[in-house]
Amino acid sequence: MKKVNVGIIGAGRIGQLHANNILNSDLLCLKAISDIKLDHLSGTSIKKNVEVITNNPEDIFADANIDAVFICSSTDTHADFIKKAALAGKHIFCEKPVSFNLNDTKAALKVVEKSGVLFQAGFNRRFDKNFRKVYETIQAGEIGEPHIIMVSSRDPGAPPEEYIKTSGGMFIDMTIHDFDMVRFLANSDVVDISVKAANLVDPIFEKFDDVDTAVITLTFGNGAIGVIDNSREAVYGYDQRIEVFGNKGVVSAENERQTNMQLSTVEGTYLDNPKYFFLDRYNDAYVDEINEFAKSILNNSPLPCTGEDGYQAELLAYAARLSWKENRTVTMNEIELINI
Amino acid sequence: MKKVNVGIIGAGRIGQLHANNILNSDLLCLKAISDIKLDHLSGTSIKKNVEVITNNPEDIFADANIDAVFICSSTDTHADFIKKAALAGKHIFCEKPVSFNLNDTKAALKVVEKSGVLFQAGFNRRFDKNFRKVYETIQAGEIGEPHIIMVSSRDPGAPPEEYIKTSGGMFIDMTIHDFDMVRFLANSDVVDISVKAANLVDPIFEKFDDVDTAVITLTFGNGAIGVIDNSREAVYGYDQRIEVFGNKGVVSAENERQTNMQLSTVEGTYLDNPKYFFLDRYNDAYVDEINEFAKSILNNSPLPCTGEDGYQAELLAYAARLSWKENRTVTMNEIELINI
Amino acid sequence: MKKVNVGIIGAGRIGQLHANNILNSDLLCLKAISDIKLDHLSGTSIKKNVEVITNNPEDIFADANIDAVFICSSTDTHADFIKKAALAGKHIFCEKPVSFNLNDTKAALKVVEKSGVLFQAGFNRRFDKNFRKVYETIQAGEIGEPHIIMVSSRDPGAPPEEYIKTSGGMFIDMTIHDFDMVRFLANSDVVDISVKAANLVDPIFEKFDDVDTAVITLTFGNGAIGVIDNSREAVYGYDQRIEVFGNKGVVSAENERQTNMQLSTVEGTYLDNPKYFFLDRYNDAYVDEINEFAKSILNNSPLPCTGEDGYQAELLAYAARLSWKENRTVTMNEIELINI
Amino acid sequence: MKKVNVGIIGAGRIGQLHANNILNSDLLCLKAISDIKLDHLSGTSIKKNVEVITNNPEDIFADANIDAVFICSSTDTHADFIKKAALAGKHIFCEKPVSFNLNDTKAALKVVEKSGVLFQAGFNRRFDKNFRKVYETIQAGEIGEPHIIMVSSRDPGAPPEEYIKTSGGMFIDMTIHDFDMVRFLANSDVVDISVKAANLVDPIFEKFDDVDTAVITLTFGNGAIGVIDNSREAVYGYDQRIEVFGNKGVVSAENERQTNMQLSTVEGTYLDNPKYFFLDRYNDAYVDEINEFAKSILNNSPLPCTGEDGYQAELLAYAARLSWKENRTVTMNEIELINI
Repeated sequence: MKKVNVGIIGAGRIGQLHANNILNSDLLCLKAISDIKLDHLSGTSIKKNVEVITNNPEDIFADANIDAVFICSSTDTHADFIKKAALAGKHIFCEKPVSFNLNDTKAALKVVEKSGVLFQAGFNRRFDKNFRKVYETIQAGEIGEPHIIMVSSRDPGAPPEEYIKTSGGMFIDMTIHDFDMVRFLANSDVVDISVKAANLVDPIFEKFDDVDTAVITLTFGNGAIGVIDNSREAVYGYDQRIEVFGNKGVVSAENERQTNMQLSTVEGTYLDNPKYFFLDRYNDAYVDEINEFAKSILNNSPLPCTGEDGYQAELLAYAARLSWKENRTVTMNEIELINI
Repeated sequence: MKKVNVGIIGAGRIGQLHANNILNSDLLCLKAISDIKLDHLSGTSIKKNVEVITNNPEDIFADANIDAVFICSSTDTHADFIKKAALAGKHIFCEKPVSFNLNDTKAALKVVEKSGVLFQAGFNRRFDKNFRKVYETIQAGEIGEPHIIMVSSRDPGAPPEEYIKTSGGMFIDMTIHDFDMVRFLANSDVVDISVKAANLVDPIFEKFDDVDTAVITLTFGNGAIGVIDNSREAVYGYDQRIEVFGNKGVVSAENERQTNMQLSTVEGTYLDNPKYFFLDRYNDAYVDEINEFAKSILNNSPLPCTGEDGYQAELLAYAARLSWKENRTVTMNEIELINI
Repeated sequence: MKKVNVGIIGAGRIGQLHANNILNSDLLCLKAISDIKLDHLSGTSIKKNVEVITNNPEDIFADANIDAVFICSSTDTHADFIKKAALAGKHIFCEKPVSFNLNDTKAALKVVEKSGVLFQAGFNRRFDKNFRKVYETIQAGEIGEPHIIMVSSRDPGAPPEEYIKTSGGMFIDMTIHDFDMVRFLANSDVVDISVKAANLVDPIFEKFDDVDTAVITLTFGNGAIGVIDNSREAVYGYDQRIEVFGNKGVVSAENERQTNMQLSTVEGTYLDNPKYFFLDRYNDAYVDEINEFAKSILNNSPLPCTGEDGYQAELLAYAARLSWKENRTVTMNEIELINI
Repeated sequence: MKKVNVGIIGAGRIGQLHANNILNSDLLCLKAISDIKLDHLSGTSIKKNVEVITNNPEDIFADANIDAVFICSSTDTHADFIKKAALAGKHIFCEKPVSFNLNDTKAALKVVEKSGVLFQAGFNRRFDKNFRKVYETIQAGEIGEPHIIMVSSRDPGAPPEEYIKTSGGMFIDMTIHDFDMVRFLANSDVVDISVKAANLVDPIFEKFDDVDTAVITLTFGNGAIGVIDNSREAVYGYDQRIEVFGNKGVVSAENERQTNMQLSTVEGTYLDNPKYFFLDRYNDAYVDEINEFAKSILNNSPLPCTGEDGYQAELLAYAARLSWKENRTVTMNEIELINI
């Protein structure tokens, strides 16, 4: 069977994750990987199994054997690499967010559109088996019309100051996944958004004009109401749950626990906590998202998650920040219309 | 042991519920019950066991043997009966809401205050064993400082048109319980409130300028953020859950199912739904709330839930309606200051 | 509506429990209660509400107004009271076991049979809403033919020495409920029984030639295999679960927890333990069993649990002891045939 | 880091499973694989990544670069290959059972012992994260002394006639895993065993003098009682649960569900069933067992599961069959003593 030949730009944590998954995939073949610094690859099976390991991303764009590029470098480099990849005729898998700036994202996606290559945004959670089952259950009509869409999304621990400083803020860095998830589940676009946010976890966030706790409500075109709750620090684990309530029922997905051991003693009953690391929780989702990307290329079938999805999630992150700053409901219309 | 002698005003569903619970209580003694119509008591054990059954509530206020009055009549009569009971020196247990009008509530509670009688508002859910355990766990410091307080509260089915018409609207009729619950759990007053509400269940609500679906966010004085989600119709049962997230952990209470049977067949695994009727779900809570009321009278100990609690919940219902109507965040300050 | 007039013999813990439930029942009316010692009734609502309180059980048998007798005295007196009640034409509700001796039980039940009165054995667990739902699910054919029937039944704590001494041993005192439960669920009679039992909880049991831990397997006439596990001391609560596996599925009932609070901290996730006291766990079942008894009398409908059920459970307790003592499989045939 | 060089004998389903896991392991390196028929490897990544693919297992024994042999061929060939591997100085990982005949197993293990190579039996379930956590919880003393050890183990569907015919019977083919699990959890040897077994799933089992349903009880040296329940066909999935009850508590592990989606409609609440395939349920356990094997070789640390464990499980399978056939309790002493 034909495989999709891949080059990866960026060999950090997420780049290596994708690299290893591609090495185990029946649908993708890892031909090249590039990064500014390559020493952290030494001794890995990536080092051993990939032909081209280079400091120069141009080697990837220029390689006629490469069908698709995975953009896993720092966010500020995404837009530029997207354009180059598109112009080189490579399909693109890009980590979220597309960029820190809506105009840059728009511009990059316009180049993609013109070039006709496929573009998938890295919203891995759409591929989580639990969330996917919820989605399919809704699609099958089991809960009727969705009325209330809830996403609880809490990180296990706050990132270091260095990360916070360049993260772009909680909404674009963390909530962006949840913005995509509510859109995915609602199957409808957002009309307006209201944010209540606070600094309750660590004053460091305030220092960078950022928040660490938020409850975000959204109105959808189909009338449904969405609500996202976020915290940068859930000490008991990576808390990732969804619930969709409709006129015929309710469907939800709980956290995955580390084990399903249950212990009862005279002091009470004890369970293991939810999984702690996102790589542990979403391990299979990361595998599935790249294979779905490959299938779309190989079978010319619809992408599970597009550039437009990436853009809309960024738009919501932008609107959320505005809502927080101005302490008011922001309509998506006004965002689209202003010269961002 | 001395018991509290009780007269009940109003012998409808909730009046009869309290009457039967009082008949089984070791702390309360039911001396009298009054209503405009008394025929629906015929054949009940209330009829058999209560000395005074009367059309005239004045018989209760005038009875020197009666220590406390339960006000279970229609909401529009509450304020008047409260004043009369207070002036007669009777302690008062009053069903929610105190009234449909903040000024009436204020005026009635002022009379109560002057007279020095005890006043308990009928927020039965504070006495649900599951919610109480959540509350105690928070009070014990197990989750540290509360950051996010969530209440899911969905009725099993919409009430009839006749009821909707005079209900005062969803916020004062149904959400009022949830307003009390978030205040109870947060242990802090509300600073502001924002409402997203909709007509998704039945157009009948719109006809009476009412809503049937809402997501309400609140900021608390201690910085915590609250969120309530409501629907008038959860077809799978009476959906009543709470969750409080803090810097040291999260605590929650699930629904009670009808039974804990579990069936797995080739088609999947089946559980019974949550309990459907509020009298079934909160049966024990109704018993506990009146015994706590009696204990406060007998032991001169603090009331578990006061007139101020009743007033604050009504204030929130008023603010919620304003927020919905004007599609904006409403601060509690502005409500307190305006001449309502 | 006509009620069944009741006299209770024995005013200890279980007698008082039934008395209070009868006082709250719409189908039964408590006319008399007798015991050797009556001082422990002083101050109770039983004292206040029951006309005849007597030291002499004959007062009950002689009372023409009494329709049914509840036998709640010590086990060694059951058989005699059963015969007297039957001869007096009173319907009988008798606590388990009928007697400590199979011949006595047989003889008493023969008198019952001849007299034509109704006789219900006090197997309250058949009326637990969870177990009943399991039973109904099996009856509805949801799991097809039962293959494996499992009962986990563990007391929260060992009884005092005084109790153990006269209990008749674990099988007749405690497992008897489980013998009835497996018969109830299997809807088939037992062919043989094998016991592995041990003294692991407390050496006091050995002193009285008794055990405190057992795993009992049974073969049913329909081919199904049953298994009961028992312990006299489950420190985490009253552990009462059932599971029935069939060719089309499996159905089970879990324990009821004290509350459904869930707390997650950095140390793990905590739940409350199962309910601890049998009166707490089976509270509603005790109410339902007596109302079902009343309905059978009033409507002339089949008893939910008969003297034969009581006898069969005792037969199994006897066979279990034999199996343990002789360390072999005992067939029910040999028990029926020997001159017990 | 040094890796353990491996040759695999047998390239069927389980051989390929191990091959793929070894290819992804950081501790093992797959050098060779042999089978009588090799065509089913064509197109696999095994074919691509393994140097030596041969019809002749002797190529593996003779290869000085190979440190360890995985024996994944049909059971009747195990004993012979074990001896050859041991004499060639290769460490051995052998699928269960070691052989169909206790004397053959004994003889093979004696050669292993003399040669000094390491031998691990393929009891993958010991490495399941859930069961392992239960084991560690017991080892940590959380439940005190174990009193009752329960294993529910039911296959999702009966194997084909061809398989049944040569399986050696349910006890050696399927229950052998459960025999190992109860020994693992009890941390004590079995004293005696009693079996109730039946043909309830399919008459085909009876044709081959086999059973498809069983409840097996065991007494352990430390006084604990064990119970295993088996069925060849649980239509709702692969049912694999354990529970250990002790004087200080109880610990258990539930099934893993396919997803943790939960759907509530007017008809009830639905969950996904347990995972259906053993490769799905025990996927990670298969990875862990071989890495633990590698660690024992590389670090000279104790094996997690030895030849003696394999032998004891077979002994129990033999005794179980005897107990079933003779319908009596069989002591392990008598089995050890008879000339098998």
